[in-house]
Amino acid sequence: MNIVMLGSGNVATHLGKALQLAGHTIVEVWSRTFDNARILASSLQAEAVADVSEISRQADIYIIAVSDDVIADVAALIPATDKLIIHTSGSTGIEILKPYSSRYGVLYPLQTFSKKQDVDFKEIPLVMEGSSEEVEHVLKEMVLQVSFNVHLLNSDQRRVLHLAAVFACNFTNHLYALADNLLKDHNLTFDLIRPLITETARKVQHNNPVSVQTGPAARNDKKTIDKHLELLRDHPELQEIYKLLSQSIVNLN
Amino acid sequence: MNIVMLGSGNVATHLGKALQLAGHTIVEVWSRTFDNARILASSLQAEAVADVSEISRQADIYIIAVSDDVIADVAALIPATDKLIIHTSGSTGIEILKPYSSRYGVLYPLQTFSKKQDVDFKEIPLVMEGSSEEVEHVLKEMVLQVSFNVHLLNSDQRRVLHLAAVFACNFTNHLYALADNLLKDHNLTFDLIRPLITETARKVQHNNPVSVQTGPAARNDKKTIDKHLELLRDHPELQEIYKLLSQSIVNLN
Repeated sequence: MNIVMLGSGNVATHLGKALQLAGHTIVEVWSRTFDNARILASSLQAEAVADVSEISRQADIYIIAVSDDVIADVAALIPATDKLIIHTSGSTGIEILKPYSSRYGVLYPLQTFSKKQDVDFKEIPLVMEGSSEEVEHVLKEMVLQVSFNVHLLNSDQRRVLHLAAVFACNFTNHLYALADNLLKDHNLTFDLIRPLITETARKVQHNNPVSVQTGPAARNDKKTIDKHLELLRDHPELQEIYKLLSQSIVNLN
Repeated sequence: MNIVMLGSGNVATHLGKALQLAGHTIVEVWSRTFDNARILASSLQAEAVADVSEISRQADIYIIAVSDDVIADVAALIPATDKLIIHTSGSTGIEILKPYSSRYGVLYPLQTFSKKQDVDFKEIPLVMEGSSEEVEHVLKEMVLQVSFNVHLLNSDQRRVLHLAAVFACNFTNHLYALADNLLKDHNLTFDLIRPLITETARKVQHNNPVSVQTGPAARNDKKTIDKHLELLRDHPELQEIYKLLSQSIVNLN
């Protein structure tokens, strides 16, 4: 298929590469920042376009991979109202695209992307939704060679999935950052807990997380919890996070 | 070396096996629950002992791998006050063993253990401390074949390390559990976010966590944050955790 990519961020970059590897052609790349469009276009052997209104009207699919709050603005400028337009957002409903085309959909890759870090798209869950069965069929065909892990979910389910991912990924990474800061404060290296982080993630690949919960709160070990809160006496924010999450563990276990 | 293992939990089990693999002999296993002592002893070709006062006086090292709050009780019962006694706790100081032997120390394996899940001990950071240089030398010799990742830290540093591990491992696993519950509530499978969990842990193996933070809070995307809080309106505890961690991300980024 011939694809126009609108956006040049992490999702546009990784999805564009994966689609190209799967045999599709990225014909054009547009981005609010033309320099970024040029960088991505060059890596995809595509053309960079400076103005949305100048993008090709002949492509099969227009992928809007931009911040949630400008999806509608970009969609409004696409000069191809009979063509398939999709967005890639977890927390935005499909309906946002309805005013701009008769055929629209969503393709949400559930992964945390960094431009500098390559990922294996085959394992990434691709969550899709279409305005019709025809659209869903086209999307399925498009990603057949991209991922082994494709799911058809509606917008409400996708929103919950995105929220769950914030807990399991964004918040988790922040806890790594807080741990890193604590260690730095005492001249200890983050290397010390890197193996533990790997193992904690590995354990839940084949187990239910609640069944492998360990630590003082899981044992309701009040003495250790109090010692930790005392250690955090100069970090009121960390104290509050420690208390709230420990209580939540006690409630769940 | 000839080792007596006091305790039969996750740490005793995995450390016992790793020490045996490294060529040491576990001569005896004692546990408060004799049946557990028998199970571990049998897997280590050791003898199970029912009463602490009956353990061998001839071993080289006595490893106390029990809950923090009974370390002193167990140490008090070891009938070998001139022998090396060590505990395996992250949050307990070395001094707790001083009344019970002239030679004492700590060997804290920084990992999350489950009895049913095998781990590669070679990669596990082993944090140690000795009452003297002689003791530290003996401990280093003992673990030479056990781990490539050995660190000498004092009790204060070890306490901070343990606290950081609670954030990066115990709390992280709990966030996985909360995500799992959210998904279950909407008939979605945890399989959807397992690849994301793996990637989130993988990313910080070679990056600073704060440098790879993603998500609505990292972008200070208030619209998405508000949508998520609205989705959590029937889960006040999750709402509170979401708010606190999002604010903490905003503060750090």
